[in-house]
Amino acid sequence: MRLSQAGIGVTRLQNLDEMYPAQDILLQSGQLVQYAAGVYAYNNIPLGVKKLVEEIIREELDKCGCIEVQLPTLQPESIWRLSGRWDKYIEDGVMLSVDTGKGMFCLAPTAEEAIVEFAKTKLKSYKNLPTTFYQIGEKYRNEIRARGYLLRGKSFPMMDAYSFNESLEDLAKSYEIIRKAYLKIFERLGLDVIPVAADNGAMGGKRSEEFMLLSPIGEDTILYDEKTKKAFNSEIFEKENYKEYLKEEYGIEDTSKLEERRAIELGHIFQLGLKYSESMNATFKNRQGEDKPYYMGCYGIGVSRTVATIYELSILHGKDGKPNGIALPKQVAPYKVHIIPKMDNEQKVKEAEELYCKLQEKGIKAILDDREEGSIGAKIKDCKMLGTPYIVVLGDKTNPGEIEVEDSKTGEKTIQKIDEFEI
Amino acid sequence: MRLSQAGIGVTRLQNLDEMYPAQDILLQSGQLVQYAAGVYAYNNIPLGVKKLVEEIIREELDKCGCIEVQLPTLQPESIWRLSGRWDKYIEDGVMLSVDTGKGMFCLAPTAEEAIVEFAKTKLKSYKNLPTTFYQIGEKYRNEIRARGYLLRGKSFPMMDAYSFNESLEDLAKSYEIIRKAYLKIFERLGLDVIPVAADNGAMGGKRSEEFMLLSPIGEDTILYDEKTKKAFNSEIFEKENYKEYLKEEYGIEDTSKLEERRAIELGHIFQLGLKYSESMNATFKNRQGEDKPYYMGCYGIGVSRTVATIYELSILHGKDGKPNGIALPKQVAPYKVHIIPKMDNEQKVKEAEELYCKLQEKGIKAILDDREEGSIGAKIKDCKMLGTPYIVVLGDKTNPGEIEVEDSKTGEKTIQKIDEFEI
Repeated sequence: MRLSQAGIGVTRLQNLDEMYPAQDILLQSGQLVQYAAGVYAYNNIPLGVKKLVEEIIREELDKCGCIEVQLPTLQPESIWRLSGRWDKYIEDGVMLSVDTGKGMFCLAPTAEEAIVEFAKTKLKSYKNLPTTFYQIGEKYRNEIRARGYLLRGKSFPMMDAYSFNESLEDLAKSYEIIRKAYLKIFERLGLDVIPVAADNGAMGGKRSEEFMLLSPIGEDTILYDEKTKKAFNSEIFEKENYKEYLKEEYGIEDTSKLEERRAIELGHIFQLGLKYSESMNATFKNRQGEDKPYYMGCYGIGVSRTVATIYELSILHGKDGKPNGIALPKQVAPYKVHIIPKMDNEQKVKEAEELYCKLQEKGIKAILDDREEGSIGAKIKDCKMLGTPYIVVLGDKTNPGEIEVEDSKTGEKTIQKIDEFEI
Repeated sequence: MRLSQAGIGVTRLQNLDEMYPAQDILLQSGQLVQYAAGVYAYNNIPLGVKKLVEEIIREELDKCGCIEVQLPTLQPESIWRLSGRWDKYIEDGVMLSVDTGKGMFCLAPTAEEAIVEFAKTKLKSYKNLPTTFYQIGEKYRNEIRARGYLLRGKSFPMMDAYSFNESLEDLAKSYEIIRKAYLKIFERLGLDVIPVAADNGAMGGKRSEEFMLLSPIGEDTILYDEKTKKAFNSEIFEKENYKEYLKEEYGIEDTSKLEERRAIELGHIFQLGLKYSESMNATFKNRQGEDKPYYMGCYGIGVSRTVATIYELSILHGKDGKPNGIALPKQVAPYKVHIIPKMDNEQKVKEAEELYCKLQEKGIKAILDDREEGSIGAKIKDCKMLGTPYIVVLGDKTNPGEIEVEDSKTGEKTIQKIDEFEI
């Protein structure tokens, strides 16, 4: 990408948001644009981060045999009446609805109804089970508390998966497979999440866990045991014999050591059981030839929330301790290298162009800072708003054929030969 | 993908839709699911086709330096008031609107307003021009005439691009670049489109062309000259001196030879001019330091319509001349090979599994027909509902280490050694 055409950068940062400095940088540098509370556009780089996050999710789910599909975002009232959730969701004000003049639709806040409709014509026999469908797509919620930029929006991309199982035991197996896939996904994303046994909320059903990342900007509060690195929902105290439970299940002796910590919920997995299959009359033929409702599980990852979290964890600080830039982890950085040539030095510009093309040929996406104005220092500053992991400078300090490479996370600089440059 | 878990196939086709047999096969075999008029879910394979179509669009646009972004689907009334389109679109019933209780939003049918808001804070100077932003995402229209399955839906994925230019001449250049990219995209997709000079409809502006594919299932009628392979909108006859115009511009001597032909509109490119930038007061500093409104172009490709067209062109016919299957072009087939082993032959099942894994390792996506029931003949029939280009059978006809490979488009069959199989 040539920076002159990208519509980003060249921003003098104003007082940054203290809670969410990275996302404020995105907003101030034109990488995010706000249209209304909780409604944003993504410029090229955050969109690229989002796509890479989605790709990692996809790879891990595909590896476990999950089947990617796409359900409609515009869903007819009729299927939400079958499950009995239409009135409740409309009254709660959670769901956005649309009158087409020929029937009411909602903008899907979640997709249990749609997936049951989808599955029931296909998974007719126990031979088709277990099957897990997933999709990655936009969800809509009429958030009164839209906050934290991409952390909680009115419209947000989410991965939602649904397993169809013939028994509770089989559901437990699918649940465990997805649980492991989630841990792998977050590990690959560099996010240190803790699965926390959770309340099921409006979803109904059996066992469920939230995937929490400890962070002062989190909206949730969890109980955390520093020694075992385990965490719990505060509802644990409502359990009878919670002390015995914690000791037996988690080896925690003294509950007074559980500390309250803020956390961001990035994923959630549920054993729904029969709730939707029974109410929507969705059945399969079991091994005895009887019609039985599916045991279902449902599994979500907030994609935009994950992107926001990655950005906030990638914040850089200046010598004054104040946030002044971003360094994205390599695995989710859409452009790995940002090339800054001294624009009034013909030789350097030529070398920069060559390096840019060579990297593209190797499949390494790069940004070429081809803006005619601005000093190299100013351009490095701009570059740090974009989060590119490696900054390559072709300026006066280096000889012909040489470049200065900065690791933007550590700030470490080295002089390298262009021909030997590798990331 | 293991077919037992995919929730597709095993369908005896009922009377197929005469106009749209391929999409009816998708529906009957569970690859598309209808929720309401013009509202569909995609199962894994059509979703894969859609992604490959999107990828080809992306590659060609990125090559011309277009910048991919993502604009919100939920757009506030305020920006549609700036351009003056809110009332008109609502009255026409084209646009679906949502009351959030704190302001009205629409489900974007198009995104001129949103992109102008996006661009105007970024493209401040002629130095930032020309810039072309594009997105691939869902659009919404309250179609009364939802028809042709994915050809015209209430909700549909579309690629929409917008160029920002400093002058009409510069706009003409961007327009020409995108025009060429479109021809390349449709060529790569194997779709023989003709650019047809068009009326601008509700979009306003200057020059525009529709990318039309001649087809009896098309909704549009165009005038076609068999000899020159050129086509025209019937509005050409409203032009004064249209005979001279046709002769001079296109070398067409005798207009009586223009035949009416049905066509599908797959893409559309417009020179919008100043319409949106003036009404929305979106300006840049020109070379003289004056504030000037952008010259804009806008460019769309109907992604789901393109997918539907590819499917309808991929229909296979039985000996009775009736449609009985699908053979997708290789470049848009998400799975290239469909492997069918004789399930009660242990050796064949083992070889099939090995081939399946080997192909995956090479990055060639395959389907393994691991369903325990059904004859090989029945499975080949099912396979032809899915459109996979190559069918590999491991049955009684072949020796150990050998496979029968069918090119599903031509029906040509060859016996090959497994180890030498290449696509």
